[in-house]
Amino acid sequence: MDFAHIYEVGPRDGLQNEQSVVPTSVKLDFIDALSAAGLKRIECTAFVHPKWVPAMADHAAVMSQLKKEEGVSYPVLVPNMRGFENAQKFKPDTVALVVAASETFNQKNINQSVDAALAGADAVTVEARRQGIPVRAYISCALGCPYEGEISSKAVMYIAEAFAKTKVDEIVIGDTIGIGDPKSVERLMRDLSSIWSLEHIACHFHDTYGRALANAVKAYELGGRIFDSSAGGLGGCPYAPGASGNLATEDLVDCFERMGIQTGIDLDGVVRAASLVSQHLGRQLNSRVFQALKGRCHS
Amino acid sequence: MDFAHIYEVGPRDGLQNEQSVVPTSVKLDFIDALSAAGLKRIECTAFVHPKWVPAMADHAAVMSQLKKEEGVSYPVLVPNMRGFENAQKFKPDTVALVVAASETFNQKNINQSVDAALAGADAVTVEARRQGIPVRAYISCALGCPYEGEISSKAVMYIAEAFAKTKVDEIVIGDTIGIGDPKSVERLMRDLSSIWSLEHIACHFHDTYGRALANAVKAYELGGRIFDSSAGGLGGCPYAPGASGNLATEDLVDCFERMGIQTGIDLDGVVRAASLVSQHLGRQLNSRVFQALKGRCHS
Repeated sequence: MDFAHIYEVGPRDGLQNEQSVVPTSVKLDFIDALSAAGLKRIECTAFVHPKWVPAMADHAAVMSQLKKEEGVSYPVLVPNMRGFENAQKFKPDTVALVVAASETFNQKNINQSVDAALAGADAVTVEARRQGIPVRAYISCALGCPYEGEISSKAVMYIAEAFAKTKVDEIVIGDTIGIGDPKSVERLMRDLSSIWSLEHIACHFHDTYGRALANAVKAYELGGRIFDSSAGGLGGCPYAPGASGNLATEDLVDCFERMGIQTGIDLDGVVRAASLVSQHLGRQLNSRVFQALKGRCHS
Repeated sequence: MDFAHIYEVGPRDGLQNEQSVVPTSVKLDFIDALSAAGLKRIECTAFVHPKWVPAMADHAAVMSQLKKEEGVSYPVLVPNMRGFENAQKFKPDTVALVVAASETFNQKNINQSVDAALAGADAVTVEARRQGIPVRAYISCALGCPYEGEISSKAVMYIAEAFAKTKVDEIVIGDTIGIGDPKSVERLMRDLSSIWSLEHIACHFHDTYGRALANAVKAYELGGRIFDSSAGGLGGCPYAPGASGNLATEDLVDCFERMGIQTGIDLDGVVRAASLVSQHLGRQLNSRVFQALKGRCHS
């Protein structure tokens, strides 16, 4: 059977760069609408310092007010041990870690080297495993860096190998700036397949240059079965001003379902979820399918 | 060598559905900017009745004022013999014909059956050939119809065979409503390959649901080498309200060039050309690359 697992990042990656902070109640409605649409994994917040990411300052409120649906997992992002310690009070289903495949990006973003970031991720992974919490490990800038430009497959493999060694549950290829193309995705996935089963590698593509869906189709053809996306295509990257955000969940679902790849997700339900945020923000969202279908899916 | 030929449809397919009519002088500047960016074939107007397509009412002015660059071809669309007769006064480099692969679409659009439309196209082709004018033949609704929904490969093949018989120079698969996906593109191209070399089939994909680029990448992998696109992604379809337009030239060029597929086109030049229209219309255009790069490409 042809299928793909969709991992929703709208409430976290989608909203974290919004200029206006979305109220907790809207976030909770958004998350509920996403699970109602059939999303089974919804990354719902980040335990980051509010000074750095004000949009996620309400992580404790989101976690304590969240009505968990049966069969749905609600991972949270934790940048470091401090974040993990704050998150663990809420017994998260999964924690997500990030290490960039770019020395400069790590230095500029978290003031650490790649090796220091890996050591931190390792410590969190060990502790999470001890507590029985699954770990999802993002390799950001895996297809390019806003500072260094091209990123070698070797740099990505270095991190993937470290993640594999500490036994994370899932590795995520993060195309943070959306610069990847079907050929570079193919090269990277072929390299990664030597150490990790491609069906357990998640693809996290941004649509900055309109290639996220083409990249996802290529990744699927190569054996990838887990795809990150955000409803409405929420989530611009602060390093690419004016650029669009994550691959839109509805664009991905519509394409895959038409290709005969089952996702278990209700397209209209995703559009309705995105509409909640669109209405709150008072603006159009970037997703093509959202723009085409929103008329028929008024909630 | 990996290469693709880009056929620019912005001045015709891109502008024909704009609600405000773009003045001839802006169109001419747009066409000039496109040839300056390296586009070698630019479909520049349509000899249709102004009552049906007011945006193309200035076809005679466009053709008589056009400064033709050496090595650049400026095809025009002619819907019927009347259109051809009006166009031939301007000695067009190529004429483009359209027959839809949907009985209902033909009936609603031109009040003719498929067979009557094919007979008309045949007459124009014979006359164009007699005058030594190359003929480009669009099969519209080739991957779906706004009225009939799915369109069978058989219906497309029927028209492609008729076009092949009358010896048109190029057949174009038109995904008028943007409903195609990489799988349906693959099925259709494999069928068409039995009667026509895939490298001489042009792919004309609309981006209504965000799949145009994924479809183009698939078509390239199968052997397609000619791709239609419009600068800025201009060109909504009146049958899909709010939907985006043609595959954007800059999205296609940026993706292909990164994949190592040469197009001979200057990306910044395309963005500058699109900016002229964006400025005139006073609104943002849909192309992802345009949105990401327009800051760096001010003309």
